[in-house]
This record gives sequence, structure tokens and C-alpha cells, in this order.
Amino acid sequence: MAKNLTTRGEDYSKWYNELVVKADLAENSGVRGCMVIKPYGFAIWEKMQAELDRMFKETGHQNAYFPLFIPKSYFSKEASHVDGFAKECAVVTHYRLKNAEDGSGIVVDPDAKLEEELIVRPTSETIIWDTYRKWIQSYRDLPLLINQWANVVRWEMRTRLFLRTAEFLWQEGHTAHATEREAIAEAEQMMNVYAEFVENYMAVPVLKGTKTESERFAGALETYCIEALMQDGKALQAGTSHFLGQNFAKAFDVKFATKEGSQDYVWATSWGVSTRLMGALIMTHSDDNGLVLPPKLAPDQVVIVPIYKNEEQFNAVSEVAVDLMKSLRKEGIRVKFDNRDTHKPGWKFNEYELKGVPVRIAIGPKDVEKGTVELARRDTLSKEFVPVENVVGQVKGLMEDIQKNLYNKAIQHRRDNTRSVETYEEFKEIIKTKGGFVLAHWDGTPETEERIKNETKATIRCIPIEGEIASGNCMVTGNPSKRRVVFAKAY
Amino acid sequence: MAKNLTTRGEDYSKWYNELVVKADLAENSGVRGCMVIKPYGFAIWEKMQAELDRMFKETGHQNAYFPLFIPKSYFSKEASHVDGFAKECAVVTHYRLKNAEDGSGIVVDPDAKLEEELIVRPTSETIIWDTYRKWIQSYRDLPLLINQWANVVRWEMRTRLFLRTAEFLWQEGHTAHATEREAIAEAEQMMNVYAEFVENYMAVPVLKGTKTESERFAGALETYCIEALMQDGKALQAGTSHFLGQNFAKAFDVKFATKEGSQDYVWATSWGVSTRLMGALIMTHSDDNGLVLPPKLAPDQVVIVPIYKNEEQFNAVSEVAVDLMKSLRKEGIRVKFDNRDTHKPGWKFNEYELKGVPVRIAIGPKDVEKGTVELARRDTLSKEFVPVENVVGQVKGLMEDIQKNLYNKAIQHRRDNTRSVETYEEFKEIIKTKGGFVLAHWDGTPETEERIKNETKATIRCIPIEGEIASGNCMVTGNPSKRRVVFAKAY
Repeated sequence: MAKNLTTRGEDYSKWYNELVVKADLAENSGVRGCMVIKPYGFAIWEKMQAELDRMFKETGHQNAYFPLFIPKSYFSKEASHVDGFAKECAVVTHYRLKNAEDGSGIVVDPDAKLEEELIVRPTSETIIWDTYRKWIQSYRDLPLLINQWANVVRWEMRTRLFLRTAEFLWQEGHTAHATEREAIAEAEQMMNVYAEFVENYMAVPVLKGTKTESERFAGALETYCIEALMQDGKALQAGTSHFLGQNFAKAFDVKFATKEGSQDYVWATSWGVSTRLMGALIMTHSDDNGLVLPPKLAPDQVVIVPIYKNEEQFNAVSEVAVDLMKSLRKEGIRVKFDNRDTHKPGWKFNEYELKGVPVRIAIGPKDVEKGTVELARRDTLSKEFVPVENVVGQVKGLMEDIQKNLYNKAIQHRRDNTRSVETYEEFKEIIKTKGGFVLAHWDGTPETEERIKNETKATIRCIPIEGEIASGNCMVTGNPSKRRVVFAKAY
Repeated sequence: MAKNLTTRGEDYSKWYNELVVKADLAENSGVRGCMVIKPYGFAIWEKMQAELDRMFKETGHQNAYFPLFIPKSYFSKEASHVDGFAKECAVVTHYRLKNAEDGSGIVVDPDAKLEEELIVRPTSETIIWDTYRKWIQSYRDLPLLINQWANVVRWEMRTRLFLRTAEFLWQEGHTAHATEREAIAEAEQMMNVYAEFVENYMAVPVLKGTKTESERFAGALETYCIEALMQDGKALQAGTSHFLGQNFAKAFDVKFATKEGSQDYVWATSWGVSTRLMGALIMTHSDDNGLVLPPKLAPDQVVIVPIYKNEEQFNAVSEVAVDLMKSLRKEGIRVKFDNRDTHKPGWKFNEYELKGVPVRIAIGPKDVEKGTVELARRDTLSKEFVPVENVVGQVKGLMEDIQKNLYNKAIQHRRDNTRSVETYEEFKEIIKTKGGFVLAHWDGTPETEERIKNETKATIRCIPIEGEIASGNCMVTGNPSKRRVVFAKAY
């Protein structure tokens, strides 16, 4: 292939890794496990951020910022949280370097050892709840609805660009409520906000559900999640929202005076999505020619490529291109006119296909004569000649068509790869040969869940919230099951 | 005072510290030197970010994201940079904690020591230029115009909210150019972008200039800066832009093929502003009643406070308020209608004065009868009754008037506190008793600069770019001086 991109059929994992780098989304840095998000990748992330931020604000949340560092002792305050998060992490032990006495460079100054080590935040519940103690006195201070956009660090041994990196960017919402009911409603609301964003903007269909106890966030009483299915049949957890009960309020002593005058612990939620969403976006829609982006998140929705052999032709073509660019921009469409003379049209075609620009317009001297342009859509790779006067209308339509088409293709793929099974034999066979979501009965015990995981590498992605509920018998133990749960191998 | 705020006259420094906390802008956290930026403070920072980000993009820059951690050895590659930045910093030495064997909590796992320590970035030149080596091969790849919004850490011993904190938020631009001239033009352009932002949005007048050699950024050939004057006569450096020559390109071996086919090192700039700007904003405009915000950056530009004694009155007042709110919002004005029944009007008046909301509208039953409202402006603390039908027009006018008035007051203050001196005696006297900007002749040597600093605590804030140029003799040594430079004590 012109792009030298490994195909999905050859090696899906390699295809992904190559695509992320070649489409200028991200690359590995000189720092183990940490990525560089390149300008084109970051522009997509910024679009995601902008929409999510708007949705958070529309649901009453405010942004704030809490410290990067968390004193080690904070983690010990919530018992289950410490095991989940405080183990594989970046530990700051010193606050100074000095010149080595032998002149060999700079070394850690042993005199600058911290009294208490600081952990680079893997998530911010502890530092935030330590702060909320000061902010919350009365029911008048509730609900407290706060979000933070931040970087976090979890020391991962095996990393992959966007999907699993030591440092990643995310948002973390942390809310405090007067009642259990309100906190649960908040956690559910945010799961729905995430689902709406991922489906409507990323064009990625998701299953909503709750996690089993063993897959829950460390410190949560309930974890709500949205799960997407990638083209290779593996699941990807796209976002989680946790009902934390009063665990953190108790650990950090956050009480409030109720309307009735008594003192009660506050109820909490937390919820987050991360740059991992970039991985979901890339893996859901892209093909062997490169990235495919939904118009709503594409930094450039349309690219115009001029075709010419001399300056006269260039001028004639440019005139049409610039007019078209202006008309499209008036309609709020993001257009790039690539008039660089350092690259040939064929190179540009390849480049924008690789980068997933939804619509490409090519204009040559013959088009100028005929009053047409060539319009190509990235998702279907189809092309047609269109009269100049129809281009704006057609492009506007394409923005919606492509967005819908991507979603529909993804949901069709999920339908084709969602199967119900009755027996464990059948389950193992499907997980091994086909992958996808497998709906099966499970007896509700961590032991059975663990056994299935060990034997098949499939985990329970969620206990679905929507869909039919029918009881049955666990495929492994035969014990009663209230409803089927969703299994898959996962990223 | 109702607000229990120390006055500026009593203790300027205490006034600032109290104001930052009481106006809900920021507070100290449980982590030494790290602040929590509270939602109201963060909302102002977000407005600043949005405008700056727009200005950066309009001048051709793209955002990207680079790792939080920098391997220790990277700092040793640029000789002057290591002394400036790699010394007082947060050092990550381990990547795991474990349960203490005596059950006393969690401790650092000695088996998880990093081979090479990681520094939490104090600034990102080194990691970014290590990356640029891979991105730049040819003149076609230039200029590379990249910005990053990020958190950075410098281990400060004496910290103050926004002004000097161990962790702070900032943006750092890092650009690469084919020629020296282009790089210098870029560094100057960004100084001008900063000046435009700080003057037009923050309503804070600034002096533009260059730093002396000893005040330059570690690794720069020239540092451009903008300097503002606070109400207490101390200067505050509001932004810097550095021409880095080929220092980082040489340190990280970043060469490019020129148009002519030769290989040359790339020319660099870097430039940044930080949450320190919040300190400048607060200290320039605020008064003994609290914060004063310029309308362009105020999260709420107008607050409407209803005054009522019973439900009937509340309904009548609310109707007018909601109509007004809608009309104002149609004009793009940010309005809050504070209809909480948990707080009295007097409390609200105090609160919004403390929080610097530019315009307050109060509406009571009598106003409803008369068809008027009470309009109060925060900057002058003046009030008047205005017919409802004139409110929108008047508020629109006020948005501009208040913005201008704040700028004019600040520039008048700077004029009143900028003095030229001829002798060192006079200089010492003014620095000691009056402060402000002092223009004086200096012989251009670091020795004289150092002596003045040691004897008076005043530093050269900048060698001004604008204003008259007249030669003279150094006030200390009598040696020739090409032009006066600007001295002040500084934050």
C-alpha cells in the first residue's frame, strides 16, 4: 500500500500502532510509558474536551484544580482505595538535585529527602475529599458538583498509545450530595452524559451497565460504565461513573448539618473519561487506508486540494477554491485549503485519507471549465463530480450522512458480534474463535467470574442496564442467574 | 468591615492573601506549596485561557502535549539550563509502594527504584527538543509552532497563592524556525500577543522590554518580558518570551536540510504565561471591599438580586428579573439571577462585591411599581435607579466603561509611580520610601546590577523597548549608559 500501513487483517494490533503514529496522532516519548500527543491528535482531543466540558456545565458542574501531588498517608485513609491505586505509582522522594562531586553530572541531593513521600495522583478522590472537608458545613453547601481536567499517572508495565499509558489526560468529576438517592442519580446521569457524548459525537455505540464487585472502582459501592466493541471483537471501557456511598466522607470526615439540624456524612460520586477515548475512536471507524473521523470531531471536516500544472491554472483553481472555502466556512464547516506547492496532489490525497478528513474536494483546470469539483467521502471512499453551486448543500448533507453512517456501521458490527450462549463449551469456543460480546448466565459469584477469566481471558464487561431481563442458570455452575451479563476480552 | 477583610493600607500582603481565599479564588492545600484553584478562581483562569488560546491559534500555533516527566540526563544537555531549572525540583525515584511489613501502612518499595530518576517538568524545553529532533528534517517542516497547556513544578521554599506556588498551571510555546530572524520575530510577536492580552482583557498596563543577561531565562540569548506595576509599588513579571538561538537545537542535535541543500541547526523560541497572571489581575484592580474584575474576564458580568418579603413580592420581582436576564443574555452578557432563598439580599450584596462582579442589579417591589431597577457598578461603587427599558443599553455601555476605567486607573497609578532619578542616593530613597518603577542609568555590567540588588532589593525589570532613548551616566559608577532602564522591587 502507498501508505505502508499494515492491514487490519494482517495484524490488528500492529495496524493500530502504526496508524496512531502515521496519522500524526501520538508517539512514544523518551520517557518510559509516556506518550507525546501530536498536534493533530491533540486537536481531536480538544474537540472532545470542548463538547464534554459543555455537557458537564449544562448539567451544573464547575471546573476546579487540585494538586498533582498527594501525600502518601492520604491513600491509607480509605482502605480499599489504597490497594487499588497506591501501589503502582510515581513516588516523589526528593526535592533537589545537585552537581555530582566527581563532575559526572547531576545527582539527587540526599539532604533534600521529603519527610513524607508524595504520590503523583493516579486519581484525586483523596486530595479532593481532604479539601471538601473545609468546603462543606451545611446542606446549603450541597450538592457540590466539581470537575477537573488533569493529567494522572499510573505506573503501567505494558503500555500502548492512548489505550494504556503511564501518564494520561482525563477529566475527573467529584461530587458531594446530601442524600444517597441524589448521589446515585448523579452517578447515573454522568453515565448517560458519557453515553450521549460517545454515541453522538464519537459515533461509537455503547452498552450501559454496572460493573461486578470485582471489577468495581476501588472504594465504590457501584460502578456504572459504558462499553464499546472494537473491530477486532475486543471490548473497550469508554467511561465510568462511581457511586462512592459515604466511604470517602467517612475516611476524610466530611459531615454536614442537615436541614433538620443533625450531622450526617456526605454522599459521593466520581466519574471520568480519558485520552483512552482516542483509542476507541480510532479503532471503531478506521480502515486499512488510515484514520476515519466522524465529522463532529474532525479538526478539518473538508480539505480542498488544487490540481494544476502552471501558475495560470493554479490561479484559476485557487479562485474557485477560495470562494468555496468562504461559503463553507459561512456554514460553520471547518475547511482547509491545502495550497502548498511543496507537495503533489497525489501525496495530499494519501495524506488526508490517512488522516481521516471526512470530505475531500479536488479542483483541476477541467473542473473550472465545467463548473464542477470532485467530491470524495472518506468513509465510503466514493467520489463524484458535483456542480460548484451544489457543493455547499451537498457537503452540509454529507456532514450528517457520514456521522450517521459511521454510527450505523459500528452498531451493525456490534450486532453481528453479540451472541447469546447457553453452555460454557459454546462460550469458550466463541471467545476463542470469534470474540465480540457474549451474553451468558452467571451465578453472581466472584469465584465463577475469576474462573472464567483465568480459563478464557474474558471478563464481565457489565451487567447491562437496558435490554430484556430473563432468569436462567449459570453456564459454569448451573446455579440460578437473574439475568445474562456481558462477557468479552477487553483492552 | 462586614467582610472582615484586612485593608490594603493596614497590610497589603495580608489583604491579598485574605482576598484570594475569601473571594473563593484559591486556597492552600494539604500539600506543601501546592494550591487548590477553587471553581470561581478557575472560571476566571478559563476565560484567560480561552482568549490566549484563540490568540495563539490566530497567530498560527497548534496545541500538543508532552510528558510530565523528564529523565534527569536531559537537563544536563544544555549547560546553562541545568543550573536554572534542574536544581529545586520534584524528583521521582521509585515506581511502587507496598504494605509495610509491620502493618504500619504503606512504604516505598526499595525494589522499585528507577534506573534513572525522573524530574517533574519545571519547563519543557528539554523533552520537547528531544522530540523535535524526530519531527524536523527539512525546511518544509519549519516553522514548527507549538503550544502546550500544562502543569509544572518548581520547588519553591516560600510560596504565595497564584504568585509563587510549587505547582502551577501555564502555557508554554515552543517554536522552531529556519532562520535567526524568524525566531527573533516570533519571540517579539509573542511578547506583543501577551501585552495585548494583558492590557485589553486584564486591563493591566504593561511595559515591554528585554531582560538583562543575569535576569534572562536559563538557556536564552534574549528574554522579552512584560512588566506590570501593582498597587503597592512592586513590579510583577506578567509574561516572558525567549529567543533561544540554536542552543537547544545543538544540545538535542536538531538539524534541518535547508532549501539550498545544506544542513543547519534550527532556531528556537519559547514563551509562557501562568496562573501568576491571576495574582496580577487581583492586585491591580481590587480594593478594600474585595475583588474587582474587568468585565471581559468576569465569570458573571451582571448579578441580579431580588428583594422581597413574601411570595407575592418574590413572584413580581422574579418576573422582571427573568425578563431582564433573558434580554441581557441575548446581548451576550453573562448574567446570574441569584434567587436563592437561603441568603438575604444584604449577604448577597456583600458576596458579589467581594467577588468583584462588575454590575449588580437589585429589584424590589417598589422598583416593580415604578418600572425601575437599582444598578450598581463595582469599580466605582456608585449606584443609580434606571428605568427597566434602559437597563440593557446601559449595561452594555457599562461593560465597556468599566473595562476602560480599570485600565485608565491602573495606568494613572503607574504614571504616578514611575520616576526618573539621576543619583544613586535619590534612587535608594525612592525605592525605600515610595517604590514604583524607577528609571535610571546603568552601566550595563552584571556587577553594578548585583550591587544595586544587594543594597536595595531592586532589580532591573527590563530594558524598555518603547519610550525615549537618551544616553547618560550610570547612577552608581558614572560609566556611560546608552539608555535608562527600569528598576523596581518585584514579586
